[in-house]
Amino acid sequence: MYKKLRQFVYNVIRDDGEENRLNSVFGTIIMVLIIINVLLVIIETFKGIPELARTVFYYIEVVSVIIFTVEYLLRIWTAPLKFPEMKGALARLKYMRTFMAVIDILAILPFYIPFALPVNLMILRMLRLLRLLRIMKMNRYTGALVLIKNVITRQAPQLISSLFAVFLLLVLASLLVHSVEYDAQPDVFENAFSGLWWAMATLTTVGYGDITPVTAIGKFLGTIIALLGIGLVAVPTGIISAGFIEVMAEEKAKKEEKEPEQETKRFCSYCGKEVG
Amino acid sequence: MYKKLRQFVYNVIRDDGEENRLNSVFGTIIMVLIIINVLLVIIETFKGIPELARTVFYYIEVVSVIIFTVEYLLRIWTAPLKFPEMKGALARLKYMRTFMAVIDILAILPFYIPFALPVNLMILRMLRLLRLLRIMKMNRYTGALVLIKNVITRQAPQLISSLFAVFLLLVLASLLVHSVEYDAQPDVFENAFSGLWWAMATLTTVGYGDITPVTAIGKFLGTIIALLGIGLVAVPTGIISAGFIEVMAEEKAKKEEKEPEQETKRFCSYCGKEVG
Amino acid sequence: MYKKLRQFVYNVIRDDGEENRLNSVFGTIIMVLIIINVLLVIIETFKGIPELARTVFYYIEVVSVIIFTVEYLLRIWTAPLKFPEMKGALARLKYMRTFMAVIDILAILPFYIPFALPVNLMILRMLRLLRLLRIMKMNRYTGALVLIKNVITRQAPQLISSLFAVFLLLVLASLLVHSVEYDAQPDVFENAFSGLWWAMATLTTVGYGDITPVTAIGKFLGTIIALLGIGLVAVPTGIISAGFIEVMAEEKAKKEEKEPEQETKRFCSYCGKEVG
Amino acid sequence: MYKKLRQFVYNVIRDDGEENRLNSVFGTIIMVLIIINVLLVIIETFKGIPELARTVFYYIEVVSVIIFTVEYLLRIWTAPLKFPEMKGALARLKYMRTFMAVIDILAILPFYIPFALPVNLMILRMLRLLRLLRIMKMNRYTGALVLIKNVITRQAPQLISSLFAVFLLLVLASLLVHSVEYDAQPDVFENAFSGLWWAMATLTTVGYGDITPVTAIGKFLGTIIALLGIGLVAVPTGIISAGFIEVMAEEKAKKEEKEPEQETKRFCSYCGKEVG
Repeated sequence: MYKKLRQFVYNVIRDDGEENRLNSVFGTIIMVLIIINVLLVIIETFKGIPELARTVFYYIEVVSVIIFTVEYLLRIWTAPLKFPEMKGALARLKYMRTFMAVIDILAILPFYIPFALPVNLMILRMLRLLRLLRIMKMNRYTGALVLIKNVITRQAPQLISSLFAVFLLLVLASLLVHSVEYDAQPDVFENAFSGLWWAMATLTTVGYGDITPVTAIGKFLGTIIALLGIGLVAVPTGIISAGFIEVMAEEKAKKEEKEPEQETKRFCSYCGKEVG
Repeated sequence: MYKKLRQFVYNVIRDDGEENRLNSVFGTIIMVLIIINVLLVIIETFKGIPELARTVFYYIEVVSVIIFTVEYLLRIWTAPLKFPEMKGALARLKYMRTFMAVIDILAILPFYIPFALPVNLMILRMLRLLRLLRIMKMNRYTGALVLIKNVITRQAPQLISSLFAVFLLLVLASLLVHSVEYDAQPDVFENAFSGLWWAMATLTTVGYGDITPVTAIGKFLGTIIALLGIGLVAVPTGIISAGFIEVMAEEKAKKEEKEPEQETKRFCSYCGKEVG
Repeated sequence: MYKKLRQFVYNVIRDDGEENRLNSVFGTIIMVLIIINVLLVIIETFKGIPELARTVFYYIEVVSVIIFTVEYLLRIWTAPLKFPEMKGALARLKYMRTFMAVIDILAILPFYIPFALPVNLMILRMLRLLRLLRIMKMNRYTGALVLIKNVITRQAPQLISSLFAVFLLLVLASLLVHSVEYDAQPDVFENAFSGLWWAMATLTTVGYGDITPVTAIGKFLGTIIALLGIGLVAVPTGIISAGFIEVMAEEKAKKEEKEPEQETKRFCSYCGKEVG
Repeated sequence: MYKKLRQFVYNVIRDDGEENRLNSVFGTIIMVLIIINVLLVIIETFKGIPELARTVFYYIEVVSVIIFTVEYLLRIWTAPLKFPEMKGALARLKYMRTFMAVIDILAILPFYIPFALPVNLMILRMLRLLRLLRIMKMNRYTGALVLIKNVITRQAPQLISSLFAVFLLLVLASLLVHSVEYDAQPDVFENAFSGLWWAMATLTTVGYGDITPVTAIGKFLGTIIALLGIGLVAVPTGIISAGFIEVMAEEKAKKEEKEPEQETKRFCSYCGKEVG
């Protein structure tokens, strides 16, 4: 009986792609709840919200947290079905350390902390921001981000390298611009941090224009850095392009392996040769 | 006689690539009319246009709408020739629901509404904007956008995924920047919406600079988001690059399949191997 | 004797890649002269240049124009050697209509016009700008731009299509933003032209920030257009990427065809298969 | 004995990828030292650093320079082991002319110069900036930048060509915008240099907005240049994308050549054909 109930609950809340009717109903409910929660966080930033609305928002928050808490507990309870090769307690511990479980707990904990500990306003606000992690829960119910994640994971070493190069360039550029512009604009390029803000805006081609060099040598430096900024965009773009091309080619190959009975003529997309 | 006339009219207005002399004359006339219409919409935004010019513009508008209306009616009339597998009324209904037919009706309707219904100035202005849809009518007479449309359609699922990722990132970034900068600039980062405007300008690397963070933590957040903005550009670029490469390779393969008699040596562009 | 002299002159000034000693000396002299000319145009924009320097600059200009004129005349004289399949006068006429010959004449003509015709200051200034065309003369002596030109030429139809799409988007965006923002900022979004300037800065992600929407609906429109701007960058980037990949693969194939004796093992860079 | 010691020292400091325990300990120490040095340069730009801290910083600087000097001398001493095909003195001279050795000496020399020569404050500051070259020393201990460097080296000719095209475009654009906008904004577009700063910000899509054209013809020019700016980003991006795709394909081919015993089925990622 217990095992049957657990299996039933697991089938409802499982998120490993094996879909069934109840499962997708459950997923949709959680998705709607997440979207409502995010909308509330957005609405709360607007001024002049009447007291009544605030009360309603609070009750929605309470209900959401209860549902998310129950969801979290059920996921722990059914963890042994997710990791069948492990004993109960171990499977649960393992589940609690997964990325999605950590997101789940961080997304509800901030609600409980003020009841348990005395917190000041500053910390309370920080805690409230953690509610935004609820957006990440969406990841469980949508397959939309899988391909992008795959490409980024596959190209991670090169992307990290290019990020490292960006970082070195940022530090160099910010120190150079600071030392070059400090005499002309001591209030604007106050320290290396101001330089970093400018270097970032230039290298990423955002170019806010709140800080710009005014001396001839500073502008010359700015020209060099902006041109490097184009390269900076080009490197990760090249890495990600190459990744997408590879992943798409692999997926095509897999698909064609699966459907060999399909006897229409196929041609190598590169050499135009017929492919048996 | 009726059938012959309808066939003749259909041959003049058909837009399915089967070109003939009258057809291309008709297409050119409509294209010129569309361009005149768009130019008029542009010119009308300038101040100090003399009353006489306004009168001329109005008559051009009237003539254009009459021509477009006749065109629309003729297309409905000849719909059974476009969908020969359907009966008359059904074919016409089907045609009226096609994308281009909807564009056609939306581009002329705003002219007639004020005669039929009492509308206030606000709605009238909105209706006038619908005239811009006439630009979309051009699509029927030019093949220029076909390749781009093909690539985008083929990569649509990945592009939508990356748009979804962008959207999540935008919401997260706008709420974070609002909560971080609100104390320092309560008038600038008023609510989540101001944060969104900043996050958009930063993630897309537009960087207007009308709103920028001033606190150290806000600038740090800005740096992270701007760097993610580079990735944001890289992902759709990678997707579209991969799409163009695939489409171009397929077109090449198709072309070579069509012209097998051409006996010049060909080489696989990737391995340099001769290809039979 | 005449033919021998003409052949000698032609060998000195020919620009078809068949290099020899005199030819490269001549090319270097012209290149240096071009660079000096461009530097002069730049320097002349600075204020406070002493009268003496201006006089020197004028004499450099005179000498340059004389040399460029002689070069132009010699190129016309030797044209029959460039197009040996044509008779003298015809070959010369054909040469005068080539792109580089038109550049040559436009780069020197502005110097002579004021002597022949009375011109006002405005036209004189315009004419002086034509001197910048001398930069284009460099193209004859450097192979650096050939690969880029090849890729762009090969992808021209797609690039023009994407430019057409950009143009439609620009017109639509500028009219929309004008009609949305006009009431709130009648001085800033004065007419369609102001809207165009904003739409351009947003779609290309330049984002000067001199004109930005302030209404909620205008900012929403701005967000959509900025996101489309990312796509706008992605499309030509994808087209050009695909072009470079193709051109590079073809060059590799050609090179390997030329050097078949080289017996090191080669592998298809895509399937890892050994290639005979 | 001398030879054994030298061999031992060489094994500790070698940076050619042949790693051993002592070697990686040494590398880590130098890396930490470099990071501390860079952090110090950053911190020193902030105001209000107490005198005590400045003294501590100075001692850290002294210790760092001593260690870097010893490292440099040891590298020269062990150079004959790095270039075994050369005699002692020649090998040392050759080493001293390598890129990394020049970086090493430039990163420590600024510390010694003020002791040897009388320098004024301006030169002293410049010299201090050379300390930033210590960041480049990191390159020796991290493999992160190798792939990026390989791709950039391989595509160097094309990248230089596109940089040349950028440069020509920059010069043309800056002179054009100057001559067009000078009458309307003589203080803003003062000379060719101001034009260059604007042209750079526009072509790279940075768009600070500190200088923008105000005349209709200037804005039209700006639109053209901004659209070319998109192309400008597209060309190096295309070049680097193509490079990454090639390098990655070659690495894959090499890896598969090395591991031929692995008998899982493999498929050409382009044609889906099984590959032996």
